[in-house]
Amino acid sequence: MAKKSILQQQRAAYQPKLPAVLWGPVKAVLGKPTESVADHEAIKRLFPVTYGLPELTFVKADEPVEQPAAINVGVILSGGQAPGGHNVISGLFDGLKALNPDNRLYGFLMGPGGLVNHNYVELTGDVIDEYRNTGGFDIIGSGRTKLETVEQFDKGLEILKKLGITALVIIGGDDSNTNAALLADYYERNNTGVRVIGCPKTIDGDLKNEQIETSFGFDTATKVYSEVIGNIERDCNSAKKYWHFIKLMGRSASHIALECALQTQPNYCIISEEVEAKQMSLEQVVDGIAEVVAERGNRGLNYGVVLIPEGLIEFVPEIKSLIKELNEFLGVEENKAAIADMTPEQQREFVLAGLTAAALATLHKLPDNVANQLLLDRDPHGNVQVSLIETEKLLSTMVGARLAKMKEHKKYKGSFAALHHFFGYEGRCADPSNFDADYCYALGYNAAQLINCGVTGYMSSVRGLTKPSSEWVAGGIPITMMMNVERRNAQDKPVIRKALVDLEGKPFKVFASKRDEWARETAYLYPGPIQYFGPSEVCDLPSRTLWYEQN
Amino acid sequence: MAKKSILQQQRAAYQPKLPAVLWGPVKAVLGKPTESVADHEAIKRLFPVTYGLPELTFVKADEPVEQPAAINVGVILSGGQAPGGHNVISGLFDGLKALNPDNRLYGFLMGPGGLVNHNYVELTGDVIDEYRNTGGFDIIGSGRTKLETVEQFDKGLEILKKLGITALVIIGGDDSNTNAALLADYYERNNTGVRVIGCPKTIDGDLKNEQIETSFGFDTATKVYSEVIGNIERDCNSAKKYWHFIKLMGRSASHIALECALQTQPNYCIISEEVEAKQMSLEQVVDGIAEVVAERGNRGLNYGVVLIPEGLIEFVPEIKSLIKELNEFLGVEENKAAIADMTPEQQREFVLAGLTAAALATLHKLPDNVANQLLLDRDPHGNVQVSLIETEKLLSTMVGARLAKMKEHKKYKGSFAALHHFFGYEGRCADPSNFDADYCYALGYNAAQLINCGVTGYMSSVRGLTKPSSEWVAGGIPITMMMNVERRNAQDKPVIRKALVDLEGKPFKVFASKRDEWARETAYLYPGPIQYFGPSEVCDLPSRTLWYEQN
Repeated sequence: MAKKSILQQQRAAYQPKLPAVLWGPVKAVLGKPTESVADHEAIKRLFPVTYGLPELTFVKADEPVEQPAAINVGVILSGGQAPGGHNVISGLFDGLKALNPDNRLYGFLMGPGGLVNHNYVELTGDVIDEYRNTGGFDIIGSGRTKLETVEQFDKGLEILKKLGITALVIIGGDDSNTNAALLADYYERNNTGVRVIGCPKTIDGDLKNEQIETSFGFDTATKVYSEVIGNIERDCNSAKKYWHFIKLMGRSASHIALECALQTQPNYCIISEEVEAKQMSLEQVVDGIAEVVAERGNRGLNYGVVLIPEGLIEFVPEIKSLIKELNEFLGVEENKAAIADMTPEQQREFVLAGLTAAALATLHKLPDNVANQLLLDRDPHGNVQVSLIETEKLLSTMVGARLAKMKEHKKYKGSFAALHHFFGYEGRCADPSNFDADYCYALGYNAAQLINCGVTGYMSSVRGLTKPSSEWVAGGIPITMMMNVERRNAQDKPVIRKALVDLEGKPFKVFASKRDEWARETAYLYPGPIQYFGPSEVCDLPSRTLWYEQN
Repeated sequence: MAKKSILQQQRAAYQPKLPAVLWGPVKAVLGKPTESVADHEAIKRLFPVTYGLPELTFVKADEPVEQPAAINVGVILSGGQAPGGHNVISGLFDGLKALNPDNRLYGFLMGPGGLVNHNYVELTGDVIDEYRNTGGFDIIGSGRTKLETVEQFDKGLEILKKLGITALVIIGGDDSNTNAALLADYYERNNTGVRVIGCPKTIDGDLKNEQIETSFGFDTATKVYSEVIGNIERDCNSAKKYWHFIKLMGRSASHIALECALQTQPNYCIISEEVEAKQMSLEQVVDGIAEVVAERGNRGLNYGVVLIPEGLIEFVPEIKSLIKELNEFLGVEENKAAIADMTPEQQREFVLAGLTAAALATLHKLPDNVANQLLLDRDPHGNVQVSLIETEKLLSTMVGARLAKMKEHKKYKGSFAALHHFFGYEGRCADPSNFDADYCYALGYNAAQLINCGVTGYMSSVRGLTKPSSEWVAGGIPITMMMNVERRNAQDKPVIRKALVDLEGKPFKVFASKRDEWARETAYLYPGPIQYFGPSEVCDLPSRTLWYEQN
């Protein structure tokens, strides 16, 4: 039986494109000392050694460079999967081997937990070759253990020392890179001789800023989602009888929904950041959709596509308050104890009695099943399980009810039948697009150069991403530069500031200028599946978001 | 704003490959008279004029052929969408134009209803060029109106006469082709001068037999599903913490599930035909999955992928009986009237009181929400709405309960968390794979030649499909040859015999010989997205089902 699909076999031979500056020896050019995006003093206190480091840019070395002594390096995949992780690792491997063929690379297994628990494997050329240009994180696995405590740092140091590892590359999202910076500072100020480099990963696209243009995986994942959304749009436009409500992964920002909207031109797309900025109620969100359904329906167009960001309901102010109130009420130990032995019906009554009038009013607007979910389904900490709420069904149910009312008032004469989809797992482990394959390989290759420079607390940075890859700029950004202080669980914490959809940014502006037309007309675009071979304009296309941001 | 995606723009230039025999003039070679697959006399009575026609094969004409007089032709898309429908039409158009540039093609809108209601459009070269090699049926739309009555036939004839149409091509599944045959015979025996040709369409893959090797759309749709299943498998194998229950479209046969299993090598795949053949109970189906989950879980592998054919529960004998009983009970007018004004709770009691002990026993095994769905949710005819039942959640719930029991008895020590997916609409309108683009174009081009021969009641047939397309054999198969009589709604009806998964066939045998290994090991194959450019072994691959059937 085949062990690899034919596409995988062919794709293994793809040689990712590298920025020209990284072909051969480089030298580092340092900029001026940097500052964090906010809370300078607080961040400086938390990162006494690595705060304020300069930005670093590589240029070609103007004279021959001596081969550095061989080193051992460790690598960790942290958090949710994103297409291209394997290419960061293969780029890192090739970059290290180019510096000194005796360099060795170790992978810690199943995420940061592998460092703490001393589970690792050596990544040799044979292993790396099996994973070039493939999706998934299965080469060493990933996990969600947070590296935060001194005990974890010290436990990790034991195995790093034992393996003679002097540099660790952590591939992760904003939280994982924040922790990479904490680890970097701790190891540096304790003179352990271990440097830490981060790499920007997340399909959600919310790890980006002036220095980091995009996180890897966003490009591929949104292309997979756009492929299937486009297929559904074409089905919708052929059958002409359903409204498809499509929820897209991404809880804390709506970059994925926005990118997919730009790629597929659906009839409606909700951007959570706009809902919050306009302080919209759930009814207003529902009315917005219902109006489009009615306007089309009254012209005989009883079909359409609606895109919904997974995190929407946490951005609706009234629901956000309700959830906060529920979490606080059940966070109280005596309340938690009180409901432990109650029947669901008693629990319901008990919780209802503890809510404010405003929260009750919000609750009463919701369909019964959602209200019950909020009242009854909790995680072990007593928190509402927001991710279990089927927002796509919630909205279609409420839209259906709204349309029924409009029909009574003769404002709607169409028919409404809804179908539901949720896309997330379909895209996180796709084989990386050429863009992500190239970008990730460059991030990893560049990380090897950062290690070779002897720096720590930097994130690997490759920029100018809508230009041809040969012109991409490579270097390193001090992670502290992206940080501010946020209050989480009643504590001040340093965190990399999350990039939400910028309502003044070009991608949103383009969307906003077109959405009325897309609502009325059937202006669907069908991007089709990711192509790995063929014309460059098909295969090497960057995301629309990145394109509009830079052009 | 773009009207077409970049891939669409590039793909428009693709020239589908045609069997060499169809390059230039052909002549028809007729075989011996044929017989229906069963019920010869009954079928013969129903098709007095078109029964027993010979098979027809095209060979290259050995002498120059005179240009035939110009004709007008109509085309209809019938039933659910399938990738490649537009290429059947563009092939038909090009085939007609090659015969005589003055030939004209009309499309009837939104399915067979367009013929009856006289809604049509002329398909000129400009229109056709917009749709070459694209997915969807949006060029003229599709619909599910069944052409069955003499009134419909006569109403259709009016518009055919008015437009001077002497041949009609109906692109559809088994039912639509059955009706095409009825229409052909009716028009022929009434000397209307209108011929009817069918084309085999359905993603379900259940319209195939010795003469028709596969229906179009199956190849593309299963490739899209396999792409996302492969991505989910890779996610599963990276995160190592979820069991994914994936339901796949296709109610009456499990070809889609089987093909996707062959392409992706999941840990479990249910084949409905096997469940029925082995007379398995729902518990046995659940036990089969639970055992695999437990065996893997006991080795620390708390993850996996299960494929479920949409129609499964109708193949489980006890559920089939239960549904039949419910439908019969509520088909009785007085029962239907009795429940009309009842509350749901009263309805429930009333229906329960009317069921046999066996049906009640089956009902009690089901989770409450499914039992309620069966008891309460009905279509306007009083029938249980089987397609609304979320079989993937039903099974995971029951598997979870079974595992909890096994844990009590110390037979299972793993953890079980399930995620659910349903793939259907994602694949029906994808841009056709090269295989479907070529096959469909050939079917349409060939249909023009069948029309030119003057035959009626034939299905366009292109064979030898795992050979290079230049070697494909083209011709026509009398539709009556595929028919038998089945009892439907208390009436004997002629129908094309549906092709279920053959438990003695090579595709199933290969699956059956490997499934234990796939259950135990993590042997996932990641097919990746359909490629339209690049190496032929990547782009022109036929389905595994077809490959195993022919090699």
